[in-house]
Amino acid sequence: MSPADRPHPVRRAVTTLADGRRLIYFDEPGAPDRTAARDTRPPAPFPAAGTVRHDVRTGAPVVFAPARADRTFDPAGVAADPLAPSTPGSPTEIPAEDFDVVVFDNRFPALGPPGGAAEVLVYSPDPVAGLADLGARRMATVIEAWVDRTTELAARDGVREVFCFENRGPEIGVTLAHPHGQIYAYPFLTPDTAAVLGRIRAHRDATGGDLLGEALAAELASGRRVIARGTHWAAYVPYAARWPVEVEVAPLRAVPDLPSLHHDERAELAEFYPALLRRLDRFFPGDDGRPLPLPYVASWHQGPVGADGGLWRLHLRVFSVRRAPDRLKYLAASESARGVWISDTTPEQIADRLREVGP
Amino acid sequence: MSPADRPHPVRRAVTTLADGRRLIYFDEPGAPDRTAARDTRPPAPFPAAGTVRHDVRTGAPVVFAPARADRTFDPAGVAADPLAPSTPGSPTEIPAEDFDVVVFDNRFPALGPPGGAAEVLVYSPDPVAGLADLGARRMATVIEAWVDRTTELAARDGVREVFCFENRGPEIGVTLAHPHGQIYAYPFLTPDTAAVLGRIRAHRDATGGDLLGEALAAELASGRRVIARGTHWAAYVPYAARWPVEVEVAPLRAVPDLPSLHHDERAELAEFYPALLRRLDRFFPGDDGRPLPLPYVASWHQGPVGADGGLWRLHLRVFSVRRAPDRLKYLAASESARGVWISDTTPEQIADRLREVGP
Repeated sequence: MSPADRPHPVRRAVTTLADGRRLIYFDEPGAPDRTAARDTRPPAPFPAAGTVRHDVRTGAPVVFAPARADRTFDPAGVAADPLAPSTPGSPTEIPAEDFDVVVFDNRFPALGPPGGAAEVLVYSPDPVAGLADLGARRMATVIEAWVDRTTELAARDGVREVFCFENRGPEIGVTLAHPHGQIYAYPFLTPDTAAVLGRIRAHRDATGGDLLGEALAAELASGRRVIARGTHWAAYVPYAARWPVEVEVAPLRAVPDLPSLHHDERAELAEFYPALLRRLDRFFPGDDGRPLPLPYVASWHQGPVGADGGLWRLHLRVFSVRRAPDRLKYLAASESARGVWISDTTPEQIADRLREVGP
Repeated sequence: MSPADRPHPVRRAVTTLADGRRLIYFDEPGAPDRTAARDTRPPAPFPAAGTVRHDVRTGAPVVFAPARADRTFDPAGVAADPLAPSTPGSPTEIPAEDFDVVVFDNRFPALGPPGGAAEVLVYSPDPVAGLADLGARRMATVIEAWVDRTTELAARDGVREVFCFENRGPEIGVTLAHPHGQIYAYPFLTPDTAAVLGRIRAHRDATGGDLLGEALAAELASGRRVIARGTHWAAYVPYAARWPVEVEVAPLRAVPDLPSLHHDERAELAEFYPALLRRLDRFFPGDDGRPLPLPYVASWHQGPVGADGGLWRLHLRVFSVRRAPDRLKYLAASESARGVWISDTTPEQIADRLREVGP
């Protein structure tokens, strides 16, 4: 077993917050025990999750979570940071005085049982360190947290998809400045996954082939839009990228989800992904020529829970609404009422720029 | 024939701009001839339209129009207004010195032949008058322009859908302050239309019924989300409204598109729709309690071109990204990567507010 084939060692410990929500510490070797720390805030009712309706026209699910209208809104980080460690007299969402990575139930959940979940993943106690800044060791711990949450949530009754993602930047409505990711469990197939699954099946039925595997092979063979390639991972701009900046990241081996990744694949991802994120921050530099944090959505696409997941290939999409240093892409009628994106750039231009600012 | 059954008289006249684009005047009785006015700008190359690719994963069409990156950007209306009438020495997009309603080919087209079109519809020479301010007579002329464009574009080779819409407000990226609508012709079925059509067909095959007609009847029978009802039209908040403010408008009679409307239906719409738009501006009043222009997308959903259109029922959706006077709804990962909208309100709350500020 090579060093990279060894599992990244993480100690997992569970505690409960004052309002009944669950919090999980993911700690690296040598970290002290965190679970003795207690949430000192007064007990509060368990938060209410949203309810689901389906649109009559399209069948698309819509989640109604009016309690979220009261959620914490502090994108500039001027108030006390609820994702910082607790200090005596200043309890936060995280009872311990220090931590490596934590996951806890969202205080303002969009989705809840049965079949739903909304969790917050805090990468680090550092209030400004994003995934690109963590270093490979901490990033590996974040990957183990993704794997853990995918495995546990997928095993719950009624869960159809587990969605690991990050919203970054006030430009897309992020309400807390402290970098963090999120994990949703959906009690239904999302429209995006349903569409992809339908096409995977239709392609297999028509040709016997593997739609996503063939698309990846074609990107690698052409190379025109490939940004980076490792031993186990590739990054490229999708053929029909919708956004001003958009990259897809995929393992070269066919795996349906994050828990199916080998240890050496996880270890490479822990360096490959932060390097890509650093490159994205150089796409539109600031006036001083220094990197400018790019607002982005990072979306892991894992196979749905159950038999259909076996047809899937894991991939990640990272995309941005920024189309110039001082200008955003807005969704207008074509995008938001018809589902037809109109792009001011081309996938090849995006790829050229990402090569220019790389590696 | 009652007065309302008479057609709204409109004189249509076509001219050509210096770069070869077409412009159509829609004038009310008594207006002078406009076509003698010539575009005095130097000849320019005919603008390049976008190209279409389809996403490998979902099959969704994406339009690439990099020439649009250079489009006129003046949302505050500080520069010369390109949608104003021309004056000697200051030629605009409209050669005449006055007009009622005009439609012309977009100088920065997302879509073009074969099968595509991108047109601009100017409601009035007034640089600040929106649809709500025009009065019923001018609104009736706008409706005739929608009908004309739908009929003519649907007859062109390769056109699959005609989309009459308006984007309003810098909050959704509108780049010109002068109120205007747009008309697109798509050379493909849009994802939204394809999804609705699939469900209409499936419902008919399973039950023999009419999905959209039954949904409308259910809204009217319940009345819980109905905002306004006329002789020919109803407005209600959809059962699974995605946006902080969202209204659907539909004729009570089953018609697939705008050209199929009777004259009395058009006449009522010319009052019904502006009244609804005025009500929307009262949804989130300004600090002084006065109406505040609501940013919105208004999207006519007409049946696709061809045989399938017969199953369709015409409807209009108007929705807004504004969720508070000083706050917008942003699309984050769930919405933009999964197609699952998360709402901070409920359709019933939206309906209650629209009743409160009505009629």
